[in-house]
Amino acid sequence: MAGNTFGQLFTVTTFGESHGPALGCIIDGCPPGLPLNEQDIQTDLDRRKPGTNRHVTQRREADEVEILSGVFEGRTTGTPIALLIRNTDQRSKDYGNIARQFRPGHADYTYWHKYGIRDYRGGGRSSARETAARVAAGAVAKKWLKTQFGTEIACWVTQVGEQEIAFENEDFIAENPFFAANRSQIAELEAYMDSVRKSLDSVGAKLHIEARGVPVGLGEPVFDRLDADIAHALMSINAVKGVEIGDGFDVVAQRGSVHGDELAPQGFQSNHAGGILGGISTGQTITANFAIKPTSSIATPRRSIDTDGNAVEIATHGRHDPCVGLRAAPIAEAMLALVLMDHAMRHRAQNTGVCVNTPDIARLG
Amino acid sequence: MAGNTFGQLFTVTTFGESHGPALGCIIDGCPPGLPLNEQDIQTDLDRRKPGTNRHVTQRREADEVEILSGVFEGRTTGTPIALLIRNTDQRSKDYGNIARQFRPGHADYTYWHKYGIRDYRGGGRSSARETAARVAAGAVAKKWLKTQFGTEIACWVTQVGEQEIAFENEDFIAENPFFAANRSQIAELEAYMDSVRKSLDSVGAKLHIEARGVPVGLGEPVFDRLDADIAHALMSINAVKGVEIGDGFDVVAQRGSVHGDELAPQGFQSNHAGGILGGISTGQTITANFAIKPTSSIATPRRSIDTDGNAVEIATHGRHDPCVGLRAAPIAEAMLALVLMDHAMRHRAQNTGVCVNTPDIARLG
Amino acid sequence: MAGNTFGQLFTVTTFGESHGPALGCIIDGCPPGLPLNEQDIQTDLDRRKPGTNRHVTQRREADEVEILSGVFEGRTTGTPIALLIRNTDQRSKDYGNIARQFRPGHADYTYWHKYGIRDYRGGGRSSARETAARVAAGAVAKKWLKTQFGTEIACWVTQVGEQEIAFENEDFIAENPFFAANRSQIAELEAYMDSVRKSLDSVGAKLHIEARGVPVGLGEPVFDRLDADIAHALMSINAVKGVEIGDGFDVVAQRGSVHGDELAPQGFQSNHAGGILGGISTGQTITANFAIKPTSSIATPRRSIDTDGNAVEIATHGRHDPCVGLRAAPIAEAMLALVLMDHAMRHRAQNTGVCVNTPDIARLG
Amino acid sequence: MAGNTFGQLFTVTTFGESHGPALGCIIDGCPPGLPLNEQDIQTDLDRRKPGTNRHVTQRREADEVEILSGVFEGRTTGTPIALLIRNTDQRSKDYGNIARQFRPGHADYTYWHKYGIRDYRGGGRSSARETAARVAAGAVAKKWLKTQFGTEIACWVTQVGEQEIAFENEDFIAENPFFAANRSQIAELEAYMDSVRKSLDSVGAKLHIEARGVPVGLGEPVFDRLDADIAHALMSINAVKGVEIGDGFDVVAQRGSVHGDELAPQGFQSNHAGGILGGISTGQTITANFAIKPTSSIATPRRSIDTDGNAVEIATHGRHDPCVGLRAAPIAEAMLALVLMDHAMRHRAQNTGVCVNTPDIARLG
Repeated sequence: MAGNTFGQLFTVTTFGESHGPALGCIIDGCPPGLPLNEQDIQTDLDRRKPGTNRHVTQRREADEVEILSGVFEGRTTGTPIALLIRNTDQRSKDYGNIARQFRPGHADYTYWHKYGIRDYRGGGRSSARETAARVAAGAVAKKWLKTQFGTEIACWVTQVGEQEIAFENEDFIAENPFFAANRSQIAELEAYMDSVRKSLDSVGAKLHIEARGVPVGLGEPVFDRLDADIAHALMSINAVKGVEIGDGFDVVAQRGSVHGDELAPQGFQSNHAGGILGGISTGQTITANFAIKPTSSIATPRRSIDTDGNAVEIATHGRHDPCVGLRAAPIAEAMLALVLMDHAMRHRAQNTGVCVNTPDIARLG
Repeated sequence: MAGNTFGQLFTVTTFGESHGPALGCIIDGCPPGLPLNEQDIQTDLDRRKPGTNRHVTQRREADEVEILSGVFEGRTTGTPIALLIRNTDQRSKDYGNIARQFRPGHADYTYWHKYGIRDYRGGGRSSARETAARVAAGAVAKKWLKTQFGTEIACWVTQVGEQEIAFENEDFIAENPFFAANRSQIAELEAYMDSVRKSLDSVGAKLHIEARGVPVGLGEPVFDRLDADIAHALMSINAVKGVEIGDGFDVVAQRGSVHGDELAPQGFQSNHAGGILGGISTGQTITANFAIKPTSSIATPRRSIDTDGNAVEIATHGRHDPCVGLRAAPIAEAMLALVLMDHAMRHRAQNTGVCVNTPDIARLG
Repeated sequence: MAGNTFGQLFTVTTFGESHGPALGCIIDGCPPGLPLNEQDIQTDLDRRKPGTNRHVTQRREADEVEILSGVFEGRTTGTPIALLIRNTDQRSKDYGNIARQFRPGHADYTYWHKYGIRDYRGGGRSSARETAARVAAGAVAKKWLKTQFGTEIACWVTQVGEQEIAFENEDFIAENPFFAANRSQIAELEAYMDSVRKSLDSVGAKLHIEARGVPVGLGEPVFDRLDADIAHALMSINAVKGVEIGDGFDVVAQRGSVHGDELAPQGFQSNHAGGILGGISTGQTITANFAIKPTSSIATPRRSIDTDGNAVEIATHGRHDPCVGLRAAPIAEAMLALVLMDHAMRHRAQNTGVCVNTPDIARLG
Repeated sequence: MAGNTFGQLFTVTTFGESHGPALGCIIDGCPPGLPLNEQDIQTDLDRRKPGTNRHVTQRREADEVEILSGVFEGRTTGTPIALLIRNTDQRSKDYGNIARQFRPGHADYTYWHKYGIRDYRGGGRSSARETAARVAAGAVAKKWLKTQFGTEIACWVTQVGEQEIAFENEDFIAENPFFAANRSQIAELEAYMDSVRKSLDSVGAKLHIEARGVPVGLGEPVFDRLDADIAHALMSINAVKGVEIGDGFDVVAQRGSVHGDELAPQGFQSNHAGGILGGISTGQTITANFAIKPTSSIATPRRSIDTDGNAVEIATHGRHDPCVGLRAAPIAEAMLALVLMDHAMRHRAQNTGVCVNTPDIARLG
């Protein structure tokens, strides 16, 4: 109810604050028998990790994960998998006025009004550090999806501030700090981000995500449509303000005769729908885009108030990402994996029928 | 798990097919003591009702609601409220090939692959008729929100196909079949929609929705952020392909110094965030936009396959909305009301503390 | 959250008051393809029906069920199945003081304090009439379990007041109004119940329930143990005050060397555990007992208070069962069926592994 | 779905195996502002701890708890509270045949059939060590209930094997290893348990539990009755085979004129109901009893089979409780606290009405 659990059958419950002793999660419902070790998870954590280049926060965290339960002799047992990541670089410092002031664009104001108490150190629970636990859990789902169906999930940045990034090749994504599927624009992006940082400001970003090798039939037709759950998952990532499935907002000006994807004996002839019809996967590639707002912590002074309602001026110094969108790709991949895995398990649960000819369900193993 | 229930504390479970005997829902968790009668619900049902003008489907349904339980002497009792709407105009006809063919853009293909069986009459459960039950349930939530906090929810169409609709005045919305907050463009829109219909095609739409008078503090900070739940709710409406909160996709090119809403002793100085920070309501107006794809059922012939995989050509005749977006406003209002009510109850549950000074919680009654 | 939904994957949400227009439920998550019609459900409703003999309430209800959705051409479609039962014999009468007085042993006092409002006509939602919806839903689960695994569920009365009823033959149960697996004691029981009724009093009862043909592996090991869920299910039936699994309270004085069921290559050598070990079914017959308190509505005057706290004397006249336990068997069967079906679906969801040799899972279809 | 989470609003998700690196849980939904530190939790953990006297297992565990999140400056913040308990005395040993044999009365057989893989070291997840996490979580709920309502929960052993233990004084419970509310029978019990241990056998136990100072109005009337949830909670404890609420199985032979608790202006005149009517608390003391089976791990040789189906003989040596019931009191207290806290929060959520006069709800703060 307090919303720290994601999923219905493959559930992930996360915990942890930016400057507390640790972050982590419990995965409940992971099918037994999946080969799993720390390295499977560490690889994705390292992709999200802060401090790896000059365009992201300089906080240095090893983000080393420990599996506390649910794995025996290298395989999952069907019991809860607890994952623990100790915080190691939560600098002790004088928080000064932060404890009693609301930074513009931050959750300070709303946490204080909701709870009447707030762990202000580094943003507490509202910090993007919370997403480390998501990435860890997502790595398990990704591995299962890959093993079970061959599903591949990829996410890349398509725009940073005003800079659109052309798609060149997916292989380039891992080679640059911008998660850009592009090699030729990297120098330009480096310069752009340097200029943003020097201006003591921040910028937004847009990302594209897709999942290939998704079986047909995932998703529930009314409230828990696959697209609705994906929108929920992506919008639950800090700073996301917009989500599109398939053609997204372009559908407004489309005609039905253009949008509806035709079928031939060989399969679908286009994919305007983004791989989902009636809330259920078609077996095509699932595609989505999402928008991330500019980082709220900037060194430019801004007007605000304190907890007594007095006017104050705030400039946030310290270690912050000038574009939080740059580290969002692994987080979004994790969230999409959690959605797909949960729906694969739901589908399996429901199709226990004795009586129905369900030709594609065999693909669900 | 099968996704026909929405909400965690104020839960709505819907049932019903387009051409079955009835539609309806059970609302569980409605607080006791709310004055409620059929007319409270009927008003919103009538706004969504088909057959009221030439720009929407010509199916004629009274959409009369009967309250079967949970109300005693004009007030809710805290027990489940069952709402029943009988279908009356589900024409019997020869469905011909529809039973074995997949209409492009429709859920036919995915239902068949998911379930191995499908009620093809009028789209069955994937028909937009299913949303009548949502509107009925939403009317109860709206009334409670209005009574408890004075919350007002409004939704209007801002674009139909290529036609952008300027905002003039909210009072105009109820006066035209386009749910446009505009009087001067109506003639133009009538002509436009006539031309779309005559071309045997359909168009998409974009809508704006907002909620005023929302208390601060609603929403859970991680997975069940208020914005994530709104995205889920809106994307769960048939044909929605994109959702924006606040500035939405415009944030990509914004600077942090512009986006972050400043505070003064009098309150927030702007509302780029759309009334939500860190997943929690700020007390400002909540704003969102969403995109609806063009109706898939069009009379223009299109290529598809049948259940045996043979190529076929399909043109969908019959009673269909040339722009499904035109009737989406009451549905979206209902969904937003369900989200807000659920979160108001969650907030109330959690803030049972004896020890905390929570200044705004008094507003939650 | 308000507790009118049972189950996690096969969910049943009930509604309805004793003297309202109707009772019913929505079943969500039923697998597609199950042959189902009204008669499948009516048979069990008729077994629970009031007014069939002089030992139960004389209220006459047809308890006719209408399927409103989720079934197409005689088979379930995977969409919600709504079941409707109209009340027909809710006599209008002068409720007199009942509206403001708390009957001893009834839910009047607690409803009034919980909700501040209460539908006092015939007990409203706290009436045993609510269980008709459970029996209807349970009939669907029973049919699926029978079709899928050959599971059979049986329940009979083993004691009424001081009268113990020896087990003779299960076939006798349907032949007598006491749900006794016994023919020779019927005359004696008739006389006993007549004397209870004439004394203007009521008695309790004890019942035994079992399920045969349950696959091994159902149940979750920690909180949602199969036995814990069965205890929950049985204790959720009006008036149940005690539940035992297997040997139940007899285990207190047993030795481990007696209690622990030994295994041989042919299978288990005894069944003290009641078919469940570690919260998971063993494949043996599941056995349980439960106790039902005497009916609270009796014509003997009793002391109580009214809503203003004044002392009053209450004698409840009207149409009441002198032993509510006599009609509990079909209800308990329904609840056990709901638990087993839900766990069968959960098991199926979880065992999606690609990598594990799970020899008995084949039995789950 | 996999059942390692308890509660709906105050949720506890546990993890950990007997011989894995750690046990623990995440509490989600704890109201903000509750003063909390490790010692609040440690006190109850120490009461459950193994190795403290010769009548329980000799495994030595410090059971030291670490709070990883959700507490700031000595108070809960409303965010998830993660609790970690490292295992320190999980002896490495040769497990020999245990890996491939099913111990009678144990979960070995069912885990293996359910999952196809099993952590056999010390029983893995089916070990009673799992309950340490429950006790830790329960301590938080107990503290909140105490602070909020003054609720007190107490549990004691009323029978061990054939030995009934008379109630003398609740203060004695903490003074003896038998959790007996009795001082005069202790010597006798010591001798009895020594004889059981020497016979290489084990015995069952019966316990009584009660909660005083529970507000009226907790519980949901249909499936989630307070008594049903208590039955679920207690039956979910390892080895519990029977649960009674109030008079329990004694109600079978009672008359309605005896059982129904009369009311006077001063309050209820008796408590046969155990403090619950219609599934909702009456404000009286809640009372329940439960039965625990004899420990399955005994040194007496027993017949069983291995995973290949061959007959084997098993005697379980090692560190085991000769009566697991002796350490069940703190676990049952924890479970009852979790149920009450969850229902107090549910009640609070639902009674958000603006319109109802609910006189006792003020007691809910």
